[in-house]
Amino acid sequence: MPDVSHTFQLRVRYSETDQMGTFYNSRALEWFECGRTELFRSRGLPYTEIERRGVCLPLVEAHVEYLGRARYDDLLEITASASMSGKARVRCDVSIRHAETGAAVARGYTIHAFTNPEGKPIRPPAWLTGAIVPNGSHS
Amino acid sequence: MPDVSHTFQLRVRYSETDQMGTFYNSRALEWFECGRTELFRSRGLPYTEIERRGVCLPLVEAHVEYLGRARYDDLLEITASASMSGKARVRCDVSIRHAETGAAVARGYTIHAFTNPEGKPIRPPAWLTGAIVPNGSHS
Amino acid sequence: MPDVSHTFQLRVRYSETDQMGTFYNSRALEWFECGRTELFRSRGLPYTEIERRGVCLPLVEAHVEYLGRARYDDLLEITASASMSGKARVRCDVSIRHAETGAAVARGYTIHAFTNPEGKPIRPPAWLTGAIVPNGSHS
Amino acid sequence: MPDVSHTFQLRVRYSETDQMGTFYNSRALEWFECGRTELFRSRGLPYTEIERRGVCLPLVEAHVEYLGRARYDDLLEITASASMSGKARVRCDVSIRHAETGAAVARGYTIHAFTNPEGKPIRPPAWLTGAIVPNGSHS
Repeated sequence: MPDVSHTFQLRVRYSETDQMGTFYNSRALEWFECGRTELFRSRGLPYTEIERRGVCLPLVEAHVEYLGRARYDDLLEITASASMSGKARVRCDVSIRHAETGAAVARGYTIHAFTNPEGKPIRPPAWLTGAIVPNGSHS
Repeated sequence: MPDVSHTFQLRVRYSETDQMGTFYNSRALEWFECGRTELFRSRGLPYTEIERRGVCLPLVEAHVEYLGRARYDDLLEITASASMSGKARVRCDVSIRHAETGAAVARGYTIHAFTNPEGKPIRPPAWLTGAIVPNGSHS
Repeated sequence: MPDVSHTFQLRVRYSETDQMGTFYNSRALEWFECGRTELFRSRGLPYTEIERRGVCLPLVEAHVEYLGRARYDDLLEITASASMSGKARVRCDVSIRHAETGAAVARGYTIHAFTNPEGKPIRPPAWLTGAIVPNGSHS
Repeated sequence: MPDVSHTFQLRVRYSETDQMGTFYNSRALEWFECGRTELFRSRGLPYTEIERRGVCLPLVEAHVEYLGRARYDDLLEITASASMSGKARVRCDVSIRHAETGAAVARGYTIHAFTNPEGKPIRPPAWLTGAIVPNGSHS
């Protein structure tokens, strides 16, 4: 994973559990989104600002490895980083751990295209890649 | 409840359960939405068509009574009907039961304003109320 | 609303928006849950501890008034309080506002029964009501 | 993909859209779950029956490729199949298309462990693999 990552914490909501007693699998992708949101904000370029400038980052691929349980109200630590994936896509790696023990919960990545609001692919703007992928790191 | 209702069935998804083993409470509002969607379609006016004509029906109020458990994969029967609530709002009543036993799961209603896509209130269009509220029934 | 309330903040997630551009209606009930969770924790009795002692608080009723829009990444302020509703139920009132402007987003309440893990109604334990309903306030 | 697959249809819910106007990315994993549920039922072994016999199939890995847009109320066709992944895991491949045009929406897979209700790994029971992985096909 690239070396410039951002970490923040969230708690598992009751609505995110399922009858197995742990978090429902698709929540990992929602937490990945929270990781990206806070990563972009920490870079000084909130995702709201990216969309305001007419750029969307829809997912083209997602991958999750489920490594451990997390229950309602558990405090989790989300670490996210970004790198270019080829010349036209950005990849966000995310790792989720228990905040207190460091025990792994899930890790994975999402790969995003650059499009306009109508979904047409566009060339990655320099103001965007310069902000969220420091040093032009590639995965 | 007005007399022209529409009924259809859906199954509880695993993603809709929580660690208590039954459906998570907010799912009821999502099932109410499914009820409205199928009600409007049965009236010959799908909600997609309503939005295509520039009308949105955002919620201004929602009420749910939780009457019984429903578990993963249970087959539920959703019955919905619509009526005017005053001159500027439409009310959708929804009842959810177990398809096989008829045992009650939840019931309630949502109240909707009429707005344009920017959220500005508009006068209820006759083509819309005429279709979804037969006989101009009031609640 | 009773006078001992608890306030905390959360941000609207992208996953909580819908194609109308604001939050999807059922998210309000999920945010109400977050409000209860933080309220109970502030009382020194986390909901995890309540369930650990064999008590569940399933919803019997929920009511939401939608008062204003909230968009992706908006910072919201959730204020929750609890009171007894009759002798056998607890009521949680929740109010959601924009953190920066104070503009109202939604308000409402949930009413909860006291049950054992199998869903059988039980008498409200004094250790629980004493903690979450200070002064035995009634709504 | 193995040759014994099962197909069924569902409609995109409003709650599954996001402000980009298409389905929110994590919904794909929820639709994959619907695919598995209907696949297992078509094999004569509903997932409820699997859990009733004390076996859980938690995810250890998930992968999604996003191939096209799907909007509110679009009718989708979900095709799922299962195969063994090594000796201790089952893999479910899922493909999602527009029912009318056949245009691809998403495809991917989930990989599942076999555990008891407490989450302890168990040997895959023959009654289970025999039912859901016909011909013992491997991926």
